Amino acid sequence: MLRKIHFCLLAGLIFTPAFSQQRVVDYVNPIIGTNGMGHTFPGPCVPFGLIQLSPDTDTIPHNINGEYQKDVYKYCAGYQYSDPTIVGFSHTHLSGTGHSDLGDILIMPTVGELKLNPGRADFPDEGYRSRYNHATERATAGYYEVVLDDYKVKAQLTATSRVGIHKYTYPSTDGRIILDLNHGIYNYDGKVLWSHLRVENDTLLTGYRITNGWARTNYTYFAISFSQPIKDYGYIDKKKPDYVGFWRRFNIDRNFPEIAGRSVVSYFNFDTSNNKELVVKVALSGVSTEGALKNLCAEAGGKSFEQVVDEAAEAWNTKLDLFEIEGTEDQKAMFYTSLYHTMINPSVYMDVDKAYRGLDHNIHQAEDFTNYTIFSLWDTYRAEHPFLNVVTPMQNADMVKSMIRHQQQSVHKMLPVWSLMGNENWCMSGYHAVPVLADAIAKGVFTEKEEALQAMVETSNVDYYDHLDDYKQLGYIPFEKSSTAVSSTLEFAYDDWTIYQTALRAGNEEIAKQYYARALNYRNVFDKKNGFACPRYTDGSFKKDFDPLQTHGEGFIEGNSWNFSFHVPHDVYGIMDLMGGEKVFLTRLDELFEMHLPKKYYEKNEDITEEGLIGGYVHGNEPSHHIPYLYAWTSQPWKTQFWTREIIDRMYRNDINGLGGNDDCGQMSAWYMFTVMGFYPVCPGTDQYVLGAPYFPYLKLRLPNGNILEIKAEGVSDTRRYVQSLTINGKKYDKLYITHADLLKGGVWEFKMGTSPNKKRGQKAENKPYSLTNGIK
Amino acid sequence: MLRKIHFCLLAGLIFTPAFSQQRVVDYVNPIIGTNGMGHTFPGPCVPFGLIQLSPDTDTIPHNINGEYQKDVYKYCAGYQYSDPTIVGFSHTHLSGTGHSDLGDILIMPTVGELKLNPGRADFPDEGYRSRYNHATERATAGYYEVVLDDYKVKAQLTATSRVGIHKYTYPSTDGRIILDLNHGIYNYDGKVLWSHLRVENDTLLTGYRITNGWARTNYTYFAISFSQPIKDYGYIDKKKPDYVGFWRRFNIDRNFPEIAGRSVVSYFNFDTSNNKELVVKVALSGVSTEGALKNLCAEAGGKSFEQVVDEAAEAWNTKLDLFEIEGTEDQKAMFYTSLYHTMINPSVYMDVDKAYRGLDHNIHQAEDFTNYTIFSLWDTYRAEHPFLNVVTPMQNADMVKSMIRHQQQSVHKMLPVWSLMGNENWCMSGYHAVPVLADAIAKGVFTEKEEALQAMVETSNVDYYDHLDDYKQLGYIPFEKSSTAVSSTLEFAYDDWTIYQTALRAGNEEIAKQYYARALNYRNVFDKKNGFACPRYTDGSFKKDFDPLQTHGEGFIEGNSWNFSFHVPHDVYGIMDLMGGEKVFLTRLDELFEMHLPKKYYEKNEDITEEGLIGGYVHGNEPSHHIPYLYAWTSQPWKTQFWTREIIDRMYRNDINGLGGNDDCGQMSAWYMFTVMGFYPVCPGTDQYVLGAPYFPYLKLRLPNGNILEIKAEGVSDTRRYVQSLTINGKKYDKLYITHADLLKGGVWEFKMGTSPNKKRGQKAENKPYSLTNGIK
Repeated sequence: MLRKIHFCLLAGLIFTPAFSQQRVVDYVNPIIGTNGMGHTFPGPCVPFGLIQLSPDTDTIPHNINGEYQKDVYKYCAGYQYSDPTIVGFSHTHLSGTGHSDLGDILIMPTVGELKLNPGRADFPDEGYRSRYNHATERATAGYYEVVLDDYKVKAQLTATSRVGIHKYTYPSTDGRIILDLNHGIYNYDGKVLWSHLRVENDTLLTGYRITNGWARTNYTYFAISFSQPIKDYGYIDKKKPDYVGFWRRFNIDRNFPEIAGRSVVSYFNFDTSNNKELVVKVALSGVSTEGALKNLCAEAGGKSFEQVVDEAAEAWNTKLDLFEIEGTEDQKAMFYTSLYHTMINPSVYMDVDKAYRGLDHNIHQAEDFTNYTIFSLWDTYRAEHPFLNVVTPMQNADMVKSMIRHQQQSVHKMLPVWSLMGNENWCMSGYHAVPVLADAIAKGVFTEKEEALQAMVETSNVDYYDHLDDYKQLGYIPFEKSSTAVSSTLEFAYDDWTIYQTALRAGNEEIAKQYYARALNYRNVFDKKNGFACPRYTDGSFKKDFDPLQTHGEGFIEGNSWNFSFHVPHDVYGIMDLMGGEKVFLTRLDELFEMHLPKKYYEKNEDITEEGLIGGYVHGNEPSHHIPYLYAWTSQPWKTQFWTREIIDRMYRNDINGLGGNDDCGQMSAWYMFTVMGFYPVCPGTDQYVLGAPYFPYLKLRLPNGNILEIKAEGVSDTRRYVQSLTINGKKYDKLYITHADLLKGGVWEFKMGTSPNKKRGQKAENKPYSLTNGIK
Repeated sequence: MLRKIHFCLLAGLIFTPAFSQQRVVDYVNPIIGTNGMGHTFPGPCVPFGLIQLSPDTDTIPHNINGEYQKDVYKYCAGYQYSDPTIVGFSHTHLSGTGHSDLGDILIMPTVGELKLNPGRADFPDEGYRSRYNHATERATAGYYEVVLDDYKVKAQLTATSRVGIHKYTYPSTDGRIILDLNHGIYNYDGKVLWSHLRVENDTLLTGYRITNGWARTNYTYFAISFSQPIKDYGYIDKKKPDYVGFWRRFNIDRNFPEIAGRSVVSYFNFDTSNNKELVVKVALSGVSTEGALKNLCAEAGGKSFEQVVDEAAEAWNTKLDLFEIEGTEDQKAMFYTSLYHTMINPSVYMDVDKAYRGLDHNIHQAEDFTNYTIFSLWDTYRAEHPFLNVVTPMQNADMVKSMIRHQQQSVHKMLPVWSLMGNENWCMSGYHAVPVLADAIAKGVFTEKEEALQAMVETSNVDYYDHLDDYKQLGYIPFEKSSTAVSSTLEFAYDDWTIYQTALRAGNEEIAKQYYARALNYRNVFDKKNGFACPRYTDGSFKKDFDPLQTHGEGFIEGNSWNFSFHVPHDVYGIMDLMGGEKVFLTRLDELFEMHLPKKYYEKNEDITEEGLIGGYVHGNEPSHHIPYLYAWTSQPWKTQFWTREIIDRMYRNDINGLGGNDDCGQMSAWYMFTVMGFYPVCPGTDQYVLGAPYFPYLKLRLPNGNILEIKAEGVSDTRRYVQSLTINGKKYDKLYITHADLLKGGVWEFKMGTSPNKKRGQKAENKPYSLTNGIK
């Protein structure tokens, strides 16, 4: 039955195909990035599903006795490969984020002594958690299995979009399920506001919990079915309220079908003497238990575990099969796993009947679209959403619509900054839903321009957001008001440029004019004395003793000025000029990749780690992702070809440590996907992709419009990494960018590769990519 | 504008009409019962409305430092007339209960120094509460006003079904509103699970809170409009969570439009320099803020405060105008206020679009009925619901339907025991929704017999409820299992008799037979040795050293055996026989009313007080309410006529202390309403009312079917209290009961009254009311 699950994890690291009739889905290795900084999770999900059912190896609480726990950062996805125990399997996980939440509705199979607390990693026997061995672990797209050594229980997991499905094989006759409604990632004391559980009958539970976490008010409803009848059950509430009212009339601890509380851990015993297998189906909903039940019936009703495993793999295969490549097995694993990682988040946030909980906490109907959440926009506006515009544009259009609905439901009238389970969590800076809308419009993916433009304009005028009032008045955020004044000014200016573009496309000249001016605001934070973006005060003066390599205390968020000064993707010639011309610009770029960055410059920052560095270039975090492509605006465009291949070779490996930084909801993987194709959306909101070089000798993309694009780069390798020439459908192509329209046409792009650069290619001004200005006149 | 509000409170006690063109609504004196034990509230509401907007004079927390506060009992309705301060005006109140909750969404107008805690009654200057003087207080049906002395603010209140409307007249230019989302009746530390508030624009708020109180999970959504724009606003959260996430980016304490927390107290400042009047409209919903907004628009949109005052008075007048009586002004005040009290609870629990939150916490549509909550059934099955069957049967039919929906949504498959805001609070004993259904069916008010019967049968078989398993097996609840074993056995037996009756009416002989047997279970707790209902053990033996006057420790709930042994309304001859025959039965009845009950027998019981006692008869609590009518089964039926008038004279007065006990959601008042008409539903589930004697010389009832019933008792008085004869439409009528069919026909009932009883009347067996058996054969 599991014939389609071919990979097995040998020594915890290497996957080998078991059959020769390989499907692309079989290359996916969900274990990539599950150790260290990747913050990916190994458990099953389907593309853009609500469910990410995965083992949690630990969930260090946010604080213990008032002390912030640094290790909490490791557990953004609940799993660290190096951990020796599994606490249980919970149903919601963020893929690759650098802040954490979720881990909702934990299920753990146990036998023997009843334990109702998870216990500590160092003392697993204290609680219900179990030791495990990676040799028993299997992870493929849509399937996961492991043996829980302490109980000798074999655990198998799969998922539909809204239902997590567990199959447990017990060693003995006394199978048990722990349902811990208090478990969560980034749990702090008081995170669970309330939980409610009903035993509807001997094979069905319903309930919900409300949490106050990164998602400030998160409603998680569930419906849980068991394949065997419950024998008996009970619960504890670790935080009994002072007042229990007349519920005290009942013996509610045992076999009482309706329980509620702040810290409920329940258990269900089964007689597994005739059948050692128990299948548990857990449907979630953000709306109601009724919605969860509908989801359960519609997606998993009557289906065997094995059937769902097949369907999940097939769902992935359909998405992944858009691409074919020539490459080694490891390269294919990396490629298809990257593609897989671009389609975990965002996640559908809507029941099968199209009801969803809006940002206003009311229930809405998504009549003409699918509602999504988990928009990590500071990360994903760069390459993730542009990538979805290429491979699954209708879904990205629905994501845009979801963002606009969010804006309409927002009391602030703001597009999402970071949308998490129908909540705004306000993480990171800028208003980067704006470029996502602009890019979808620029590429013809989203067509309701006026509605989008209104949402963008309203968003960019929420004066109490990140000192927008000062920004609008002064043209920059003064440093005495904000510790991230410079980076926010740069980000606002770019976002504003995308409003300018959208206004042009919508034919609204007045708004275009206004936002053209705002798009140039980046100029206001460049100190011409040193050519760096610098903290500036209200009086117009710049900060003295400024260190462009320092991330902390210099006006930037998660990046130093050396990197962030390049963050003007819409006006590269503008910054080139501000820096002192092309020569300085090129020197700066070269130095960025070649410098030695002393540890003191990043050791305090969780998002910047040694693994993610090339010189002072930080691939492990987002603000620098476009920088290797900026050579295209200079006379040395071939350096993009050198460095992009270098980054792939060093930062992307088919390995538990295979990601050089947080995958950040697919952004790191989308960078890879574009880059291996040979181009990158440096400036989302234009219709241009800046060319680098293909990574593989052959890549085929079945475009959603039915066209086929073949990208050929015969003989490409680490030594033959330089583009000599390019023909598109047989015609010589000298530009350093291609357009979205070029892409959609498909055809054959043939790159001639060589061991040294063709330094003449793309030097003419007409071959350069878009820039708002040609520099400061 | 307030010309229709005629009553004013002089010296805090006496109302006088100001106009001669009196409407019946003007007799209502909501202040009756607001001191001491009545637990009524003075603020405005409309019949069966969701809103009861009323001043809270205090809300002693349930416990302080872990100590249970006895005074909490005084504040079931949030108001005690003798209190010197008002904390504010909250929107939900229970009418006359003996346990407490609600007091949701408190509004308090203040000026001057900003205070965000209520302060203590003894130190009002500590907080936002204010002193007041009863001389400034006015309370009529649908209207309340008072001057808050500390702020010189005149407060006026009125209500629609789902909207509370406040009008505040400030003395100065700096009007302020405190919105305390932490305030509540029976507040305990942790009762508020979560609250959320949005400032939608400068005149509109939305939000909600979720509480864990007597209603275990109570969702109260609101929409609040102001007649003037908010100048500025802010809030405090007295229980900030350990983790606030990225909301820390904002200065959320001041003028930030979206706040949430566990203990939120907010304030809104207004510039009242041009207009000192501020009208605040507060709509509630159990469903969503969207629902609250719909309620606001549909019921109060565009209406002036004065218009709503008029409409509320008119809504009451329409209900009250069913009756006309001859009597003194005080008698009319008592009469119409009692009628008013029968129509405060139950309360509508459904938005204007018919959406409501069900017992399963899901949102349902009440397609073909109006959904109600607040069913205090241990109290109200006796006379309140039977009374509604007479005066507003369509509403009672919808209440029955609401109970059946509750049963269908219940995981226990139980009809409500005590339904509170879509929650089951399990208060008190029995399953007395069952007789309410049976009575509505017996009287033709509710016709879906099979659906009702199924709900009744399922309810009576929830084995873990109050030892039903033992009851079904042994025929009684053994005393070693339950401290209220005897009273519950008696209550179950009666409830089961109503299932028997309903099964007969539904033509289901098998169920009828089964429940006929269960209806006789009362016999199993009578000890023939003393003729009292006594605690009995599993082995069949009765408790030794049994004291039939003692309430505590003898197997009864809120009543002693002397009273409770009469609690077999369906088989009066049966208990007469068990007690030792008519002579003993009569002696017992007489002694009950004439004995001196030493204080030790009731001092520990909050529900039994001296004011509510006549001898050992406890009118202040429900279990005895039918007892004065039991003389009808004996050879001395005239004693009913004596004692019922005695009870009215002593227990019902147009006075702040005018109720001899908790009004209990209208039960005490419904007893009055039946009794003054001259009859009472001793055994709901039969179609019979047992006759006493009219209290007024003339009473006219406009029946809902259009017929008119006139009840004449010329010359009736405390001395002429005995019925000599009765003619119905001119025809002599000798029975001691009338039927619901007789009542519906209307016509003229003419009682001849005299100073001494006509001892011959009603002696023949054929004239006696219903009894299941003629005694034990």
